[in-house]
Amino acid sequence: MSTLTYQRMQAVSADIRFGIMDLYAAYSAALDEGRYKDWADCFTTHAEYRLTTKENHERGLPIAIIYCDGKGMIDDRAFTTSETTISQPRALRHIVSGISVRADGDDYRVAADFLILQTMLDRMTEVVMSGRYIDRVVVDGHRFLFESRVCVTDTLLYPTSIAAPA
Amino acid sequence: MSTLTYQRMQAVSADIRFGIMDLYAAYSAALDEGRYKDWADCFTTHAEYRLTTKENHERGLPIAIIYCDGKGMIDDRAFTTSETTISQPRALRHIVSGISVRADGDDYRVAADFLILQTMLDRMTEVVMSGRYIDRVVVDGHRFLFESRVCVTDTLLYPTSIAAPA
Amino acid sequence: MSTLTYQRMQAVSADIRFGIMDLYAAYSAALDEGRYKDWADCFTTHAEYRLTTKENHERGLPIAIIYCDGKGMIDDRAFTTSETTISQPRALRHIVSGISVRADGDDYRVAADFLILQTMLDRMTEVVMSGRYIDRVVVDGHRFLFESRVCVTDTLLYPTSIAAPA
Repeated sequence: MSTLTYQRMQAVSADIRFGIMDLYAAYSAALDEGRYKDWADCFTTHAEYRLTTKENHERGLPIAIIYCDGKGMIDDRAFTTSETTISQPRALRHIVSGISVRADGDDYRVAADFLILQTMLDRMTEVVMSGRYIDRVVVDGHRFLFESRVCVTDTLLYPTSIAAPA
Repeated sequence: MSTLTYQRMQAVSADIRFGIMDLYAAYSAALDEGRYKDWADCFTTHAEYRLTTKENHERGLPIAIIYCDGKGMIDDRAFTTSETTISQPRALRHIVSGISVRADGDDYRVAADFLILQTMLDRMTEVVMSGRYIDRVVVDGHRFLFESRVCVTDTLLYPTSIAAPA
Repeated sequence: MSTLTYQRMQAVSADIRFGIMDLYAAYSAALDEGRYKDWADCFTTHAEYRLTTKENHERGLPIAIIYCDGKGMIDDRAFTTSETTISQPRALRHIVSGISVRADGDDYRVAADFLILQTMLDRMTEVVMSGRYIDRVVVDGHRFLFESRVCVTDTLLYPTSIAAPA
């Protein structure tokens, strides 16, 4: 922790911190509002997106629930997600906390905890999953973008109804 | 997102961001600790407070679960809420994330995701509802206040036991 | 609230705010990843750690679920927790929001809301408890540390399976 704190005070300005927090907020809002094109636009051209379980992540297994290598695949995922979720009337809500930022050359290594809730038309709001984002963020002009986002869910019982990115 | 990020870097300083985060924290703490007068004091004289469902909000329907037009009505709501909740021994907990801020003239357009949990005396902690705050915040001297707060809940099945503001 | 906001603008810089947010993030990550030694290293030599219920806290009762007086007892707790949780394959996830900071001499009085979720091997993710952190934070060189952390849970039905700190 002391190392992290030290580097922050040396290298990561408030502007950068808020820029990254804004990227996280924009990402969550895009998914919760079903704006999948805006979700895809949170990534760089060569970005990696991966949704995997804690078990696979800790064992270093390449198996993932969703895996996208590059913006093309992310755009495809955005398109198929908007097609498949039209028939499913549910609201998603992302809650994110504990964002930590470490400068790494010109990039930033960022991590955070997430919780996703869903509300079906005829049911009360319920927990879908919790987990951790492990990210690499870059600055492109005035924009902050994900060069890499790995979503590690805590659950092994992955609900098959979830076609959407986390 | 790029527009939002750009405007932030131009216009919203760290002091303003933290001031708004403090207002959000003070608002949650007031509700969770049953200090409804302090809750009412988070609003300006002419403030609007509205608690509505996602469906009504998206259709632009004026129907709301709670609607207050001006501080007088908000004070009234604070008073009736403290009267009605005395008999109901439960603890509420507000979790808020993804606060985004955009300068709009002298005001700030702010949005965030929320999750409310409750703990009844004889039960485990459970999710009450999730949703989104859509706000207009103003600065009055050193104080940040809500000129308008709209709480949009994700659920249609609104628990009738909830008389309290969200 | 106005007092709090005023003091913040006078005394608590963005660097201090982010330093405290980083301490909170490091604390949560240490517990969620089972790094109990790192958890213990979030405290000063003479730190107090207490986990208690809302009822006991409000009545000023000294009874606590966990009580540690000084780093020695915190280190002991870290050791016993790692021993007892090995046999229990579950993932914890801390979500924290509403961090408020007030300068008090050279120290900082900090409070925040928390939500803890757990995922057992064969179950969906579920809420364990919600509550409030009431803390005193000090700066030791470049490091932010807890001089005191009191975790006040909202629940009376405290699950006996929870041996871990909150």
